[in-house]
Amino acid sequence: MANITKKVSWSSRPDESGAIGEGTPLLNGSEQQRHGRQDSVRGRPKEIPHNEKLLSLKFESLDYDNIENQLFLEEERRMSHMSFRCLEISRWVVCGLIGFLTGLIACFIDIVVEQLAGIKYQVVKENIEKFTEVGGLSISLLLWAALNSAIVMLGAIIVAFFEPIAAGSGIPQIKCYLNGVKIPRVVRLKTLVVKVCGVICSVVGGLAVGKEGPMIHSGAVVAAGVSQGRSTSLKRDFKIFEYFRRDTEKRDFVSAGAAAGVSAAFGAPVGGVLFSLEEGASFWNQMLTWRIFFASMISTFTLNFFLSIYHNNPGDLSNPGLINFGRFQTDSEAYYLYEIPLFIAMGAIGGLLGALFNILNYWLTIFRIRYVHRPCLQVMEAMLVAAVTATVSFTMIYFSNDCQPLSPDNTEEYPLQLFCADGEYNAMATAFFNTPERSVRSLFHNQPGSYNPLTLGLFTLTYFFLACWTYGLAVSAGVFIPSLLIGAAWGRLFGILLAAITTTGSIWAVPGKYALIGAAAQLGGIVRMTLSLTVIVVEATGNVTYGLPIMLVLMTAKIVGDYFVEGLYDIHIKLQSVPFLHWEAPATSHWLTAREVMSSPVTCLNRIEKVGTIVDTLSNTSTNHNGFPVVVQVSGIDEPARLCGLILRSQLIVLLKHKVFVELARSRLTHRKLQLKDFRDAYPRFPPIQSIHVSQDERECMMDLTEFMNPTPYTVPQETSLPRVFKLFRALGLRHLVVVDDENNVIGLVTRKDLARYHMGKHGLEELQLAQT
Amino acid sequence: MANITKKVSWSSRPDESGAIGEGTPLLNGSEQQRHGRQDSVRGRPKEIPHNEKLLSLKFESLDYDNIENQLFLEEERRMSHMSFRCLEISRWVVCGLIGFLTGLIACFIDIVVEQLAGIKYQVVKENIEKFTEVGGLSISLLLWAALNSAIVMLGAIIVAFFEPIAAGSGIPQIKCYLNGVKIPRVVRLKTLVVKVCGVICSVVGGLAVGKEGPMIHSGAVVAAGVSQGRSTSLKRDFKIFEYFRRDTEKRDFVSAGAAAGVSAAFGAPVGGVLFSLEEGASFWNQMLTWRIFFASMISTFTLNFFLSIYHNNPGDLSNPGLINFGRFQTDSEAYYLYEIPLFIAMGAIGGLLGALFNILNYWLTIFRIRYVHRPCLQVMEAMLVAAVTATVSFTMIYFSNDCQPLSPDNTEEYPLQLFCADGEYNAMATAFFNTPERSVRSLFHNQPGSYNPLTLGLFTLTYFFLACWTYGLAVSAGVFIPSLLIGAAWGRLFGILLAAITTTGSIWAVPGKYALIGAAAQLGGIVRMTLSLTVIVVEATGNVTYGLPIMLVLMTAKIVGDYFVEGLYDIHIKLQSVPFLHWEAPATSHWLTAREVMSSPVTCLNRIEKVGTIVDTLSNTSTNHNGFPVVVQVSGIDEPARLCGLILRSQLIVLLKHKVFVELARSRLTHRKLQLKDFRDAYPRFPPIQSIHVSQDERECMMDLTEFMNPTPYTVPQETSLPRVFKLFRALGLRHLVVVDDENNVIGLVTRKDLARYHMGKHGLEELQLAQT
Repeated sequence: MANITKKVSWSSRPDESGAIGEGTPLLNGSEQQRHGRQDSVRGRPKEIPHNEKLLSLKFESLDYDNIENQLFLEEERRMSHMSFRCLEISRWVVCGLIGFLTGLIACFIDIVVEQLAGIKYQVVKENIEKFTEVGGLSISLLLWAALNSAIVMLGAIIVAFFEPIAAGSGIPQIKCYLNGVKIPRVVRLKTLVVKVCGVICSVVGGLAVGKEGPMIHSGAVVAAGVSQGRSTSLKRDFKIFEYFRRDTEKRDFVSAGAAAGVSAAFGAPVGGVLFSLEEGASFWNQMLTWRIFFASMISTFTLNFFLSIYHNNPGDLSNPGLINFGRFQTDSEAYYLYEIPLFIAMGAIGGLLGALFNILNYWLTIFRIRYVHRPCLQVMEAMLVAAVTATVSFTMIYFSNDCQPLSPDNTEEYPLQLFCADGEYNAMATAFFNTPERSVRSLFHNQPGSYNPLTLGLFTLTYFFLACWTYGLAVSAGVFIPSLLIGAAWGRLFGILLAAITTTGSIWAVPGKYALIGAAAQLGGIVRMTLSLTVIVVEATGNVTYGLPIMLVLMTAKIVGDYFVEGLYDIHIKLQSVPFLHWEAPATSHWLTAREVMSSPVTCLNRIEKVGTIVDTLSNTSTNHNGFPVVVQVSGIDEPARLCGLILRSQLIVLLKHKVFVELARSRLTHRKLQLKDFRDAYPRFPPIQSIHVSQDERECMMDLTEFMNPTPYTVPQETSLPRVFKLFRALGLRHLVVVDDENNVIGLVTRKDLARYHMGKHGLEELQLAQT
Repeated sequence: MANITKKVSWSSRPDESGAIGEGTPLLNGSEQQRHGRQDSVRGRPKEIPHNEKLLSLKFESLDYDNIENQLFLEEERRMSHMSFRCLEISRWVVCGLIGFLTGLIACFIDIVVEQLAGIKYQVVKENIEKFTEVGGLSISLLLWAALNSAIVMLGAIIVAFFEPIAAGSGIPQIKCYLNGVKIPRVVRLKTLVVKVCGVICSVVGGLAVGKEGPMIHSGAVVAAGVSQGRSTSLKRDFKIFEYFRRDTEKRDFVSAGAAAGVSAAFGAPVGGVLFSLEEGASFWNQMLTWRIFFASMISTFTLNFFLSIYHNNPGDLSNPGLINFGRFQTDSEAYYLYEIPLFIAMGAIGGLLGALFNILNYWLTIFRIRYVHRPCLQVMEAMLVAAVTATVSFTMIYFSNDCQPLSPDNTEEYPLQLFCADGEYNAMATAFFNTPERSVRSLFHNQPGSYNPLTLGLFTLTYFFLACWTYGLAVSAGVFIPSLLIGAAWGRLFGILLAAITTTGSIWAVPGKYALIGAAAQLGGIVRMTLSLTVIVVEATGNVTYGLPIMLVLMTAKIVGDYFVEGLYDIHIKLQSVPFLHWEAPATSHWLTAREVMSSPVTCLNRIEKVGTIVDTLSNTSTNHNGFPVVVQVSGIDEPARLCGLILRSQLIVLLKHKVFVELARSRLTHRKLQLKDFRDAYPRFPPIQSIHVSQDERECMMDLTEFMNPTPYTVPQETSLPRVFKLFRALGLRHLVVVDDENNVIGLVTRKDLARYHMGKHGLEELQLAQT
């Protein structure tokens, strides 16, 4: 029936006999390293495969399905209605805290960046002004480039040497986390610290980056930390929120954190909620959504409040968000029906340019994976980019002769006069000699005529390539603002040209409107979000009038862009061979059934199992399973056995650690009664099997799994079609799905990789290879 | 283990032996009536039980899980990649059409209401002006009351006599539909026609209602109609979109329709999407969300475009939505931190007033169910309310001495001078003598000082009771606008009082801001939506500055209101005893397992079953099941049998109709090969079993169900806890969930009613009674 040859391409899966489950020796090894000593980060980049047709086995899954074993049910049943109320209240408290801390971090980043960038621009400006008069501007150039490189070097060093996972915007990683993939170290305190310091360095260092993307990652880390009521890095356990120490609850809080991050970055609480939902959640739960909303709200609020104090206007909460695009006065800038085709055309341009951006960045990333994987090389590349950015900017400013009169309502903070007449400033410098946020704002709101078309064209061109080169460097940085800036530049250019070729003019003559549309188109073309992005842009501009055109533009950009290549985040996820589950199974996958996609045979355990067998199973580095069906043998020993539960590696580890053994001979229990607390204390970093010593005598003991296994795992019959399996798996956030026959005997196990392996290629359904990388 | 005595309260379930599944004879009977002749609507209201501790058995479920039988899989496997693309494109086309038609309907309603209301107000105004001079204003009152009553009578007659389901806003019905409950006749063309005419009559008739709520229902009907490519009412089948003729696809389109309705009503495309998601969807699917968004977008766009032509300003698309709250100029109307506690206090007031509204309406509804269930009584009540509304308004205007100067920037279209001096108008009349939409707008935007506190207080009081009395009448009408109006009135009053008691003043002196907050608080207190409502209000005001306070207010209103009573829609859903599934199982329900909640024993069918048995099973009016597990007997005849599939009543009916029999003696097939098309043609109104004639010979034939049954129904083991069963059921939108034992033998079936029965009462977990009503 199936039109795909199965498993022809299993290149490097070590041992198929008895092989089932997920996880690899590599990962286990690195777990060990993590516990034993400082991370060996030098080796990491080598692990990244450079073939996007692979699916890495090194990624574990998160378990978003509650393990409803006897211990859990007993606890739940002991809890009164009031306890559930308290739990609900503490969820709200945690969300409030997440929002508050995320807002504080955003505020910190904003103030530090503003101060440092202010100092830098002031120094360079004075230097340039000095040398404009006396000649020898090349010294200014050197100063500028050296300053930028030095600052960026700092940021790159902490990222490349201390926490490589903090590189980039972190959005792909958070997407993966919310999708259910465990990305090591992604929500740790150290990552947060490196991320925050890194992003400050990148922005102050004048790279073509924004400080907004990393906020999303920061929010997620804050959420993961606060909700657990302890910090492993700081070795503090506050003994609170212990109920939340499992993947299901933690994921919910991380969604809230990501939303709070978006909310703080763009002043877009609703956009934040939608971002979390669009990128992550599969099961829409009303209460959860409200909590996420609450966290977003508090986050914007906190940021606002502290920024209002900083700006000496305490209590004014009307200007939310790290970035503020400024308000459009709608009455003067309405749009008309005949502009809609123009907007759609701009969307298409955005889609094309976005696809070009993504393809270039894809090639660059492959190049980087192959040749620039040593930390010192990465730092040098970052410094090079910083120097080149400064040089290009300087050259552009130097050769530009676009002088504009300096009027009091200009928003430029550092107008450069250069070779312009007195009372005028260099317009090219407004675009380059500024933080990108301010440049975007100038492009949106400066009076018609503030820029000439050549300036804008050149700026678009150079900034496009600079931003493309910058994304993927070993620095913490976001791609939102550069995208907006590129788009705003060509959008404004579009508006100016439009005004030039038409004579009727009045409505066409508002280039700021086209800058906004262009910005949306470019950003949409690169990241390919629609609903959440619409809301984010609408909230960031504080204006819903342009909601409709922005939607149209984002949709067009997505359709056009998707024709060529995926979105930037998806490209990077794919390049890391993450087993990412999309929303639905590929359309033409009804051919496949659970029997064909499942892994089999399965390593099963008996309900009462010998300790030695368990230790051997867990120690088997060639398989390294994480979930084991628990069975009852009804017929012969080689026959398939009846399913009666499912137990995880992590649970077995805890059981072994606490020596929960039954000595058959004397039939007595040698252990105290294990409680859920013991499992929660070990969460999420369970020790590796190698660290647990089991004596030869103990190996002969038995272990009763009844109390600890999940007695009601979800199952599917073997004839179930792939889309149906996929739907169940995705909707409930499963990690293991047992495939049974008519008599409820275990015949296979479906895990994330078995489903993520199938995807829609250019020539129909394709199967990715599984690799140990 | 379980702390609830099970099934002690099954008052009226007819026959437990062999009883399982859902549906009742009553429903089947009414199905029959529907096909045979004009609906007998007179009997309907009697069916509504007046005890909210009941759960009605008359409601069927929708089947949001695809029936993946062999026919379906064969079709899917035949389809190429390209066919799936085409299907996807047609989904977008359908969504576009839904948006377009919904927008057109909104436009139609708006223009007709505006024209008719204009004529009415003009006539009454002239009359009042005439009689103000000559005396005898009681004649004006009579004219006004008579006009209103006549118009409302018309609206009430078509609703009460022709389509009672078109009464009210339709939002509770759409909520139920999206939740998975089949509400008869809710998405039919006739309902739409009655709804549209009804809402025009109610609004023009001067009732305290809005035309926005019904738009949501209208959009849903349009969606259900368009997506099926045929109309049963018009007896036309366009032979298109046949793939969409099943519950899963139809539900998705109905979500889009509801969103398009919200979008048209409030000019809030994002709010519409969120409404659909918050009220309906459980599984968040990105592609679906985008389509919903697209429909919303097109809907606003269409409405805008046609209204711009109507208003002689073609092409200006900047003023979306049926209702336009007018734009707030943010710069002048910022808010400060110290206002936040005030906003929260207003939220609490809104919650309290909302709870009061809901409780009063609850009592009223119970009264109506008991005593006002005959259509002619309903029409008379509606007329009475119309007359009283006119009288009260008139009295209020008459005794008011709040005269305001007539300035050119007033938005009043029908200023009444009455006993005011020349150049002045009666301020009370601006609130009453206007469509509610305009009144809201005046309250938001009129200059400080346009209303005096007494006017506002009296207006709030009277309008509160009028609106409360009006909701639930047999007329099509929404509760959004009246709620906003009440809230805006007391909000503005709050603002005025605040300005009066404080001396510093400048920021406090903007009563429009408080009117907005009050409106949000009141609406939130009544309907208890948060996320979607925030976005709707933000989009309707065209201003995101107040986003944060509006959120806070809505959340406060919800928390305070929920302390007393549920939201208005939920109350009405409960009063109709609908088996509505909430987001999660009650928190303390871990005590219960599938074994305890399931219905058993189950009527099962064999894979190859005698036709006579099937006919008898289907004809058994005492059980009237809709889903039957298909089993293979492995041991004795009375032993539980092994599950091998699930088949629905509707499928069996089609099989019987097409005589898909196997004559065992001659072992040949007497029928042509049945195709999916045959099932789709019969969808959604399958004939009752009584209409199918099966001869005595045919009764002896066998029927092979293998090809038609769903071979992989979802199952749970009997020990599964209720929350786990609930999660599976809710997340996948199931209708039947088979409970099996360790050996995959059928031991029970869980349906919607088995899960909806448990709810959190004041004293912990409560179990609702099942009733035939």
